[in-house]
Amino acid sequence: MQKERLNSEILKGGITEPKGFLSAGIHCGIKKVKRDLALIVSTTPATAAGVFTLNKVQAAPVLICKEHLSKGKTFKAIVINSGNANACTGQRGYDDAVIMANETAKELNIIPEEVFVSSTGVIGEQLPIEKILIGIKKAVKHLGTGEFENAAKAIMTTDTFMKSVSATFLIDGKNVSIGGISKGSGMIHPNMATMLAFVTTDAAIEHDVFQILLKNVTDRTFNKIIVDGDTSTNDMVIALANGQSEIKIEQQKESYDIFEEQLYQILKKLAIDIVKDGEGATKLVEINVEGALNNIDADKAARTVALSPLVKTAIHGEDANWGRIIAAVGYSGIEFNPDKFEIYINGHQILNQNYEIALSIQDANQTLKPKEINLLLKLNMGTGKATCWTCDLSAEYVKINGSYRS
Amino acid sequence: MQKERLNSEILKGGITEPKGFLSAGIHCGIKKVKRDLALIVSTTPATAAGVFTLNKVQAAPVLICKEHLSKGKTFKAIVINSGNANACTGQRGYDDAVIMANETAKELNIIPEEVFVSSTGVIGEQLPIEKILIGIKKAVKHLGTGEFENAAKAIMTTDTFMKSVSATFLIDGKNVSIGGISKGSGMIHPNMATMLAFVTTDAAIEHDVFQILLKNVTDRTFNKIIVDGDTSTNDMVIALANGQSEIKIEQQKESYDIFEEQLYQILKKLAIDIVKDGEGATKLVEINVEGALNNIDADKAARTVALSPLVKTAIHGEDANWGRIIAAVGYSGIEFNPDKFEIYINGHQILNQNYEIALSIQDANQTLKPKEINLLLKLNMGTGKATCWTCDLSAEYVKINGSYRS
Repeated sequence: MQKERLNSEILKGGITEPKGFLSAGIHCGIKKVKRDLALIVSTTPATAAGVFTLNKVQAAPVLICKEHLSKGKTFKAIVINSGNANACTGQRGYDDAVIMANETAKELNIIPEEVFVSSTGVIGEQLPIEKILIGIKKAVKHLGTGEFENAAKAIMTTDTFMKSVSATFLIDGKNVSIGGISKGSGMIHPNMATMLAFVTTDAAIEHDVFQILLKNVTDRTFNKIIVDGDTSTNDMVIALANGQSEIKIEQQKESYDIFEEQLYQILKKLAIDIVKDGEGATKLVEINVEGALNNIDADKAARTVALSPLVKTAIHGEDANWGRIIAAVGYSGIEFNPDKFEIYINGHQILNQNYEIALSIQDANQTLKPKEINLLLKLNMGTGKATCWTCDLSAEYVKINGSYRS
Repeated sequence: MQKERLNSEILKGGITEPKGFLSAGIHCGIKKVKRDLALIVSTTPATAAGVFTLNKVQAAPVLICKEHLSKGKTFKAIVINSGNANACTGQRGYDDAVIMANETAKELNIIPEEVFVSSTGVIGEQLPIEKILIGIKKAVKHLGTGEFENAAKAIMTTDTFMKSVSATFLIDGKNVSIGGISKGSGMIHPNMATMLAFVTTDAAIEHDVFQILLKNVTDRTFNKIIVDGDTSTNDMVIALANGQSEIKIEQQKESYDIFEEQLYQILKKLAIDIVKDGEGATKLVEINVEGALNNIDADKAARTVALSPLVKTAIHGEDANWGRIIAAVGYSGIEFNPDKFEIYINGHQILNQNYEIALSIQDANQTLKPKEINLLLKLNMGTGKATCWTCDLSAEYVKINGSYRS
């Protein structure tokens, strides 16, 4: 069953909305035609925070970023190529990532440790480093505040739309902005499985505070999106804060909560856009679990339902098959009393306690017609709750992932 | 890409190969046309062993079987219906399962506690108990030693072929037989996701020994098959031993090892047949992990690779995409040094240590042409090893599971 793909509106401004950030997105020849090299630059030194893949196989640029983040205090640039992940490439891959940082630093007249390096694309092939070096020179020439869409495009692999968002809000009477771009995961492609996001802000935030903020908000956004359970070797979220708004974000101040909420909205939008762009996705599914014994149980239940191929295919087929949902919660490993279980789809109760069917199959299936599905699972055992996002599983996903190179 | 389905030869004898076992498989009207009620009977009292689903949602027949197994010493019958799982059916479902045991006992002139009850099919609908009661009477009339194929057929849901196997071997100069039937899981169907297996033997085995034997062998067979990671509310393996061969199986005797090996071969065959019959499966994949730090790590790595939709779609597409395999091991959570990792497909080395590519993409893809794929992953870190079986993931799987009721 072929269904219309999901899409997403693009919010203005992006990563150059915050003061003092420039970007570029150009074509250097890793891909045949499309943009494949992005550069993000702060005109003044910025603090940074980063969250990286937990995969034991870590691509060379991930290793470089972690080194720079642990050693450096301020940063000025992020250079990203698409089309080649520089993963599983051994010592040569590591050396090439170092060369990317060095060349970017040289062209910007800064030091290599002020540069983050990121790659996404095919695993196991060496970078075409000569092309990239020429590309870096070209990108530096293109740097500007109007180039944020090109940067968003240049980090895409098989994404079908660019992911770019920004927000401007008041703190203590001054404008503060956050911008972000991301690219999809969704095991979107053979060997092209990486989730990347880059965030800029003109707030001033000390590294330790920024790191906690980014980790917390990432846990509630990027770490709550579930396409197919595969985890990439290259995943990363990097954020830069250059302080040009003259507003400092500190813990235990009201401004902290305002900033955290705005950062949450930005990362949530970027994360949900990745789910919407999951390979073959036709429906965005928000799963809310309430009434678990604790939040950890709620999260486990939500993730298990989100990962179940049976639940995901049923949603694709607009089949309100509550037996699959209850069975998935049942094997999630949490404390669970199925007699107390309730299911709501888009506000309509499907299943009441004691397995009482609340809607006919026909009416229940109607609740799955919209493109955005809200699944509410009430366990009625405690106060634990969790939210995650996933997409449906279509035959299209399998076709794309099974026949890429054949 | 549509590919030819896998199939399996049928081995002679089945569950009535062991002395003193009768069976029947009839149509009672739960399904429209096909057989839907099976009966397995031992002519003399048999000891029993059982392994049941770990899902927190347990169907009524699972509860009944566990009760009977914990209370009773000997058993004489197993009654199984297909077409309705009697799961998520509350008190009425429980009462119906009791009625099934009572009626079977009455017709066979035995006591209800000597009867096991099993169901598979749609979740959340009440059993058509009147039809089943008439069916039990009919099945008793059909009991015979030539009816094992009908029993194998009567437990099928969307299985495309029946699963029946037996073996006869010598212990201390006497013939001992084991027979078995199973039915598929593979999230074969919306709400029809159950793995069932029933095993008969004319060996004599005390309950405690039998239980350990069955659990150990189930762990190495049924618990090593991975179709899509969903776990049913109704899964069970039940085995009966009536002693009519006059051979007793006891621990720390040579005969124990012989019997265990034969039981392993029987359950392995029944388990692999379930994988072969996984919805949309076109390839059977055996995954062997060697050289993990320990067996637990090896098992985790094997399972993670077996569950990865990316690996499964690549195998379906005959794309020897080693990057997906190494990434899956990387996120399996085990101790892992990717520099030491080696991959072999059907005996051909694809990847050597230090990411050295051992075969061209074209040649590596050729290794995935056969219908049976052996994937050997060498971690070169220790002596831990594990084996599991899975199938490829095809667009067919999604189509069938997404559009059943639409």
